[in-house]
Amino acid sequence: MKNKSTNLRVRLPALIFALEVMIVGLYAVFVTYEDDANALLQNNQTRPMENSLYKNYPFFADIQVMIFLGFGCLLSFFRRYGFGGMVFNFLIATFTIQWAILVQGFFQFYHDGKIHLGVLNLINAEFACAVVLISFGAVLGKTSPVQLLIMALLEIPVFGVTEWAVVKYLKINDAGGSILIHIFACYFGLGVTFVLYRPSLNEGHPKESTSYQSDLLSVMGTLFLWVFWPSFNSALTFKGDDQHRAVLHTFIGLSASTITAFALSGMLSKNGKISMADVQNVTLAGGVTVGASVDMMISPAAAYVLGILGCIACMLGYKYLSPFLARRLRLQDQCGIHNLHGLTGLISSLAGICAILLATEETYGPSLYQTFSYRAPPEGDPLLAELQELIPDLEAGLGRTAQEQALFQVAAMFGTIAVAAVGGLLTGVVLKLPYLASPCDEKCFDDELFFNVPPDYNCVNGPQDVWSYVLRETNKTDAD
Amino acid sequence: MKNKSTNLRVRLPALIFALEVMIVGLYAVFVTYEDDANALLQNNQTRPMENSLYKNYPFFADIQVMIFLGFGCLLSFFRRYGFGGMVFNFLIATFTIQWAILVQGFFQFYHDGKIHLGVLNLINAEFACAVVLISFGAVLGKTSPVQLLIMALLEIPVFGVTEWAVVKYLKINDAGGSILIHIFACYFGLGVTFVLYRPSLNEGHPKESTSYQSDLLSVMGTLFLWVFWPSFNSALTFKGDDQHRAVLHTFIGLSASTITAFALSGMLSKNGKISMADVQNVTLAGGVTVGASVDMMISPAAAYVLGILGCIACMLGYKYLSPFLARRLRLQDQCGIHNLHGLTGLISSLAGICAILLATEETYGPSLYQTFSYRAPPEGDPLLAELQELIPDLEAGLGRTAQEQALFQVAAMFGTIAVAAVGGLLTGVVLKLPYLASPCDEKCFDDELFFNVPPDYNCVNGPQDVWSYVLRETNKTDAD
Amino acid sequence: MKNKSTNLRVRLPALIFALEVMIVGLYAVFVTYEDDANALLQNNQTRPMENSLYKNYPFFADIQVMIFLGFGCLLSFFRRYGFGGMVFNFLIATFTIQWAILVQGFFQFYHDGKIHLGVLNLINAEFACAVVLISFGAVLGKTSPVQLLIMALLEIPVFGVTEWAVVKYLKINDAGGSILIHIFACYFGLGVTFVLYRPSLNEGHPKESTSYQSDLLSVMGTLFLWVFWPSFNSALTFKGDDQHRAVLHTFIGLSASTITAFALSGMLSKNGKISMADVQNVTLAGGVTVGASVDMMISPAAAYVLGILGCIACMLGYKYLSPFLARRLRLQDQCGIHNLHGLTGLISSLAGICAILLATEETYGPSLYQTFSYRAPPEGDPLLAELQELIPDLEAGLGRTAQEQALFQVAAMFGTIAVAAVGGLLTGVVLKLPYLASPCDEKCFDDELFFNVPPDYNCVNGPQDVWSYVLRETNKTDAD
Repeated sequence: MKNKSTNLRVRLPALIFALEVMIVGLYAVFVTYEDDANALLQNNQTRPMENSLYKNYPFFADIQVMIFLGFGCLLSFFRRYGFGGMVFNFLIATFTIQWAILVQGFFQFYHDGKIHLGVLNLINAEFACAVVLISFGAVLGKTSPVQLLIMALLEIPVFGVTEWAVVKYLKINDAGGSILIHIFACYFGLGVTFVLYRPSLNEGHPKESTSYQSDLLSVMGTLFLWVFWPSFNSALTFKGDDQHRAVLHTFIGLSASTITAFALSGMLSKNGKISMADVQNVTLAGGVTVGASVDMMISPAAAYVLGILGCIACMLGYKYLSPFLARRLRLQDQCGIHNLHGLTGLISSLAGICAILLATEETYGPSLYQTFSYRAPPEGDPLLAELQELIPDLEAGLGRTAQEQALFQVAAMFGTIAVAAVGGLLTGVVLKLPYLASPCDEKCFDDELFFNVPPDYNCVNGPQDVWSYVLRETNKTDAD
Repeated sequence: MKNKSTNLRVRLPALIFALEVMIVGLYAVFVTYEDDANALLQNNQTRPMENSLYKNYPFFADIQVMIFLGFGCLLSFFRRYGFGGMVFNFLIATFTIQWAILVQGFFQFYHDGKIHLGVLNLINAEFACAVVLISFGAVLGKTSPVQLLIMALLEIPVFGVTEWAVVKYLKINDAGGSILIHIFACYFGLGVTFVLYRPSLNEGHPKESTSYQSDLLSVMGTLFLWVFWPSFNSALTFKGDDQHRAVLHTFIGLSASTITAFALSGMLSKNGKISMADVQNVTLAGGVTVGASVDMMISPAAAYVLGILGCIACMLGYKYLSPFLARRLRLQDQCGIHNLHGLTGLISSLAGICAILLATEETYGPSLYQTFSYRAPPEGDPLLAELQELIPDLEAGLGRTAQEQALFQVAAMFGTIAVAAVGGLLTGVVLKLPYLASPCDEKCFDDELFFNVPPDYNCVNGPQDVWSYVLRETNKTDAD
Repeated sequence: MKNKSTNLRVRLPALIFALEVMIVGLYAVFVTYEDDANALLQNNQTRPMENSLYKNYPFFADIQVMIFLGFGCLLSFFRRYGFGGMVFNFLIATFTIQWAILVQGFFQFYHDGKIHLGVLNLINAEFACAVVLISFGAVLGKTSPVQLLIMALLEIPVFGVTEWAVVKYLKINDAGGSILIHIFACYFGLGVTFVLYRPSLNEGHPKESTSYQSDLLSVMGTLFLWVFWPSFNSALTFKGDDQHRAVLHTFIGLSASTITAFALSGMLSKNGKISMADVQNVTLAGGVTVGASVDMMISPAAAYVLGILGCIACMLGYKYLSPFLARRLRLQDQCGIHNLHGLTGLISSLAGICAILLATEETYGPSLYQTFSYRAPPEGDPLLAELQELIPDLEAGLGRTAQEQALFQVAAMFGTIAVAAVGGLLTGVVLKLPYLASPCDEKCFDDELFFNVPPDYNCVNGPQDVWSYVLRETNKTDAD
């Protein structure tokens, strides 16, 4: 059957070239430079070193490392799917960013008939990219590059609309993207994997294990993510003390979840040993859990506690919830994104709501109306002018109360879950279409399907493989 | 015997949870934000882009990579202890930073009853963390995670006191931490390993070797350290020309020691080949040797010579001193920290003293009294006001002469060695307590003891292991 | 024959020590600090945070990662030459930078009898270093460290002269170094490899293949280069909008060439699978292709198209041109630098010329005379004063027209090719001298020649090696 073939010779180039034509066309018509990248707008008032590049580029560079090396190495944990993990991550990330520049551009950076491109858009696009890569985690090893590109193609517009609605109308606090990035990505990915359910994989797959080297590589990915996560969570906060706190809280949250992960890994394993999968994943839970309140005055101790709570939820999820979801709910979540991004995202959202409800002018001073910009008095309110004397950059807000905002946060949370899940389900249906080179069950988690593998590929397994090789050779020798 | 067990199921979680309760409690009571991270202190005089975050965060991010990826990969050089090297490094580093924030906080950032936390504290804590990780190098592969956490728990207060006394009272020049970081860490680690002496390891251990992949991984660690070392050595200097020189000297020193290491490695090996252990360690000697004088006007040529001298000392140490120390003085220094941090630290301290003695106003101009702040006239001296017209930020000093300061530097050096060695010895005694999961001799350098290892673990050794596997399988087949 | 020996015991140390004596001597006599690193020049007008360090160091740090980790990992793709790739890269890079500081210093940073050293020189030296490392790619695995050091020793002065002539007299636009870095390095490397032609290697070499781990490591190198390439291409542009555009274009160009590389890799492989060599190399083509016009107002869509074009040229080069060059023209280009740096560099140069011809004041405003500084009116022209009111930093230019400049660009391109090729040929002749430890054909691509290899080295090959080991052991057992 032609449509069962996984040969990429025609379908991958055809898809990519079509996408490229579309992207070049749209870039040519719609994308221009933002003011700080436009030579025409420079004049004798321009101070080159105050270009927005210098505010944003250091954070962008850090996030680049997270996306390409962090995710890339982390996803290479299968012993026979290292190429797939690292290389498909590279492919999808690259395409997603190109595409997100356009989609987010239309929603957020569009005026005078053009999308205005600067490094700030690239940061936003890398956030969108993180969304797709997290969702990718749910279907790792079970999908072809063609399917993955189509998933990215469909996920980004759904994400773009959700982000636009949430940011523009609900105006939520979510500096670290707990709701928009982690929860969205998780439920979208679960939607996709629900439709792509493969009953045979529930019995375990011979290639679904790690090797010594792949485990080490994957830990390196974890470390890249760990090291630069403060940049991720703080990239889009207000400059100044808000960003400073975001760095501190992320560091403390990660730090707390890391040592907790070691404790729980030893405690919950049968033989009292540490599992590398926990080191690779659960250590990172704190980075997500502090996300929604990362720029607020929650106190370092609270960031620490959030790191511990996130870690516990994530660990119990891996231990008890994931097997349940796979067996009972057809949710085969390959990397356990529901634990690392879903459960922690929910905790983070709740913590964010608490922090919003507890925020007072005694703690924040007038900058309360900056961090919680929706609480600023609306245009025309005399209070606004008064506040603007204290905080000159303050913009008019919506005059919401904290209680009102808590409802908006809840609405954003549930709305995001609903849109993401439905979007994921529909995307899953599309990915089941024929001709998308979907691998058959036996060829899952196997680089040989989509890559020209090096001569030692059949040995990477360890002695078992060598043993079969030896048997083959012995038979040959005997036959001689 | 229960106390010989290395099962982590109870003791690791028990220790970690206890530490976490302590840390959360102390954070809740004592840790608040520094002014630049405190929303309440922002007003219409605040310029967000002048927040100290932007001065410190780039250096912090670089040091993060050194601590987690640099040390992590470097310490993974044993063929069967890659998990241990990289993952225990992750665990200890994370805990140490949390703990150092408190300990250093009380000594250096405490006022109005609170520790004031900002990114600057994190940089200081990562320096403290480097101390523990260097000491860890002396006992790598011979200690359990429980022991390592306790070592960190004890080392940090000893380090904190030493640092506080040296910085506050002796007021030494040591921008790169040659005395406080490298010498302290080295002699503390030697103290610990002296007490943990295992006679049987002197005969060599079958697992104490590298593999092709572990050697490559370890070189990557070296490269991460190499690349960001200029940030490490310059992170805490004065901003401006001092920091600029620190970057230049570190780069030149490292560069000189690197090519020297290749020359010596070829020259001192029996067969005229390069040893990977030299590439992994000796290349880095220059980064330490320039440390104590890194921000001074020593000239680029002197930085180059310091790199060469450090490299020679380090190499001869590995070749001749380490075996002697292990056989005669019960000092089993697993990673050779005495060569890379001790000998080079001593050279660096001496070079620092020379640079202090040679420093004149002809070379430095009035900023002499900034780089060598103890030489600034004391409060009330009319000369101070005069100098402050030239260097507005200049603070009152102690009016010391260069000769006097040389004595303080010597005192700091010997004082640090003494405190570190005694602290290390006592810590070693504590680590010999029962129930700390100390591995038995045969299980040293073996990941299987503390980790759930992947199926190919028994193959990582190369053909020997495969051969035993084949023999076992053949016997099975024959028996069938 | 003594001169066929590859023992490094004498010749490597002898060469390195000689080089070090030379360098220390020249540094001592000629190298001093640039103003921003000189304590003597600081006074009450100095604003520490405006030190040039802070403008240059972030870019320098990124380029450090590219040079040491990016190139290092990328060049480790041979299964038995991982040490050689990563470690010789480390050695040559380190020496080259020391040497380039001097050579470029004399040409570009020399005044008052001294070379003035700052981080800016280091960035320039790392660019020179990239040149040598690219050339190294042509002879990877076929040269000794002694030969490589001599190659660096000779290449840097040739490069330094070329750079000086092109920058000072031709004053070309080439922010990303397409001509000076990529084209120069490519044709120099081809010159060297032409002379070092080894007929026997044209039949293929048993060790000239990759392993699963080496392929992954090499992709990591690609990712390090990919992630920080925007810093490379923008490091030496004007600050402000020029640098901002350079970042955007590099990112877009790389991004376009990456997805194109996947399409072409699948399309051009016989079995419709992706080749890792393409992922490792061809994905990067876009970073070179946008280089010459990277700071201009070419539009994001044009950067995208340049990425695609570069990728196609590079891919076709690997597929069809490289085999032809090796068989017919004695050009054994080990890493295919002619595809990744030569062809793409030529396309980039042509694109740069087009962008120069199309540049108008309507698009650039008065900053046209900054980006294209040779078009600024010469000293004394009344137009200059007028423009300087609009752009205060504007310097006097040469009053060239775009058409005139196009000719200078062409001259630079052909001049560079000619000088590089001749320099490479002569260098190749020098490298053929005896006593330089050149490996014999069978020992090419083999770490055992120059390194003490770990015990598992003979297993890294996969089951074939294990099989021979098993046969040997079986025979031993049978003999017992």
